[in-house]
Amino acid sequence: MVAPLTIALDAMGGDHGPEVVIGGAGLSRARHPDTRYLLFGQEDTIAPLLEADSGLAENCEIIHTDVAIPMDAKPSQALRKGRWKSSMWLAIEAVRDGKADAVVSAGNTGALMAMARFCLKTLPGIERPAIAAIWPTVASECIVLDVGANVSADTRQLIDFAVMGAAMARGVFGLERPTVGLLNIGVEEIKGLEDIRSAGAALRTSEPPFDYRGFVEGSDVGMGAVDVVVTEGFAGNIALKTAEGTARQIAEYLRAAMNRSLLARLGALLAQGAFRALAEKMDPRHSNGGIFLGLNGIVIKSHGGADATGFASAVDLAYEMAHGRLVERIAENVEKFHTKLDIDDVA
Amino acid sequence: MVAPLTIALDAMGGDHGPEVVIGGAGLSRARHPDTRYLLFGQEDTIAPLLEADSGLAENCEIIHTDVAIPMDAKPSQALRKGRWKSSMWLAIEAVRDGKADAVVSAGNTGALMAMARFCLKTLPGIERPAIAAIWPTVASECIVLDVGANVSADTRQLIDFAVMGAAMARGVFGLERPTVGLLNIGVEEIKGLEDIRSAGAALRTSEPPFDYRGFVEGSDVGMGAVDVVVTEGFAGNIALKTAEGTARQIAEYLRAAMNRSLLARLGALLAQGAFRALAEKMDPRHSNGGIFLGLNGIVIKSHGGADATGFASAVDLAYEMAHGRLVERIAENVEKFHTKLDIDDVA
Repeated sequence: MVAPLTIALDAMGGDHGPEVVIGGAGLSRARHPDTRYLLFGQEDTIAPLLEADSGLAENCEIIHTDVAIPMDAKPSQALRKGRWKSSMWLAIEAVRDGKADAVVSAGNTGALMAMARFCLKTLPGIERPAIAAIWPTVASECIVLDVGANVSADTRQLIDFAVMGAAMARGVFGLERPTVGLLNIGVEEIKGLEDIRSAGAALRTSEPPFDYRGFVEGSDVGMGAVDVVVTEGFAGNIALKTAEGTARQIAEYLRAAMNRSLLARLGALLAQGAFRALAEKMDPRHSNGGIFLGLNGIVIKSHGGADATGFASAVDLAYEMAHGRLVERIAENVEKFHTKLDIDDVA
Repeated sequence: MVAPLTIALDAMGGDHGPEVVIGGAGLSRARHPDTRYLLFGQEDTIAPLLEADSGLAENCEIIHTDVAIPMDAKPSQALRKGRWKSSMWLAIEAVRDGKADAVVSAGNTGALMAMARFCLKTLPGIERPAIAAIWPTVASECIVLDVGANVSADTRQLIDFAVMGAAMARGVFGLERPTVGLLNIGVEEIKGLEDIRSAGAALRTSEPPFDYRGFVEGSDVGMGAVDVVVTEGFAGNIALKTAEGTARQIAEYLRAAMNRSLLARLGALLAQGAFRALAEKMDPRHSNGGIFLGLNGIVIKSHGGADATGFASAVDLAYEMAHGRLVERIAENVEKFHTKLDIDDVA
């Protein structure tokens, strides 16, 4: 029997605050009825919302605090003003103290990363945490990291991202030996940035605990060429947002095309079930949530603008990561591979 | 009256060689019947293909050479073995010598850039050329540069890219004062790489000859937020290919959705005109062609795997760029803005 999980929620984070957080918890609970939630924030705002959601209250505990981190706070400001007492900090602390198995916040990314690093610390051997995203592909899904924790990555960090991403793929996709590629601007060995080329060389020769497939290009990600795509955070963030923008753009084209004639409108009406399935598949709310990897604890960042459906996806993700024993898997893999690779040689 | 244009074609470049090049020239000529083409390559392969295309031969001149640059040649190899004599080199040389107004090649990008720089030289004041792409947006089109000439760009180069991109937007979109954005991972001033932030600061305060709109994100490109998106070549290339991959992925989803039930198939049948229009709009062959900016001459790179329709788009692009007096516009703008900005301050 698996013990029920506890998830800490920063109830004050995000553009819409407690309403979306509690709504999202309610939706996620319907899928995982045993889960318990710790809600950090303004008790007098949270309590009435909880009561309105039948049954949710019995899975929840409210931990009151007056302090919330503004969405536009700089990470250093957030740390200075919100440490020890903000809803974001307290939710992270619950993970550190073993009171929760994971934390979810829709608050500001920089502040969340700064606090999570400060409070949870990085895993032994990991220099910098990364943010991973689950990216829908033609075949199923893949993991892309880093999508924005850092604006660059050296050889050593790229290798760590590969190891962490592969450990995550093992935990959440159940793959024994996930395939891993390095994102680059061409598949030939001579292409791209120095650090990417040397990370590629190191992975090729070091028998890593995954199936290293070499370089992949931007067009390979959505086609599902590999299970894990490794990149530094600048290009990764640009790629992720470009894909989101392209999906929105094509949805616009499709809407316009289906309205251009009576026949097209009639056709669209007949095919409305199919269009609904397509819209569902393309709905960015279903893949909402950045997973912070490399910390002593599971931290999930929801989109700041997410609605309850989107926030629920992030809570689901926290649930899956905790069930997949993400942190332990990463720690084991990093330790083994670092010993083997003699990582200082490539640092 | 406008004098007819002459376009130099590297007939041996690309995965499919002369067949696609001559087929593409034929398609483009149907739209621009006055244009003349100089075809560089194996005469005995080219001549029969030309004769098969009724009427095209009278607009063409074949310049024979035995030497072709392999698609996998390194730039340095290509220069060493192909300079003065390959089809790629001779086609570029025709532009340098004023015998052609533009050159198009589907050959290997690195080799084409190396030869073009060596033969044509960069414009005064430009350190590094960039490759620009025309990117379809919800509203119309925008220009994105650099999409892969370089794997990094400093402050000075980003500013040059902005000036060149804006000059191109003026020439090809006919915009008096194009809007320009710097691609970044957030719109706040504190976000992103140092060089992007300082380029942003310089553009904000220097009254550039365009409407500088600040940072844009990956999701803004396809939504048409600005006319010109400026980025270094690594992220730009990743973004471009990610958008292509996402479009292919959604086309797959759509096909699958329209086949999932009898009703959907019937709907798709009724709406087939609309689907055809959508497919046309999403067809990557219609936006085939990277434009090399910053050289003393117009050089267009077609996708190596392009078919005749795709190659014809690249030839059309060469035609438009030559008609829009691209090189003169860029030279004027760079000179004016450099004088004004006192560019050495930000270098």
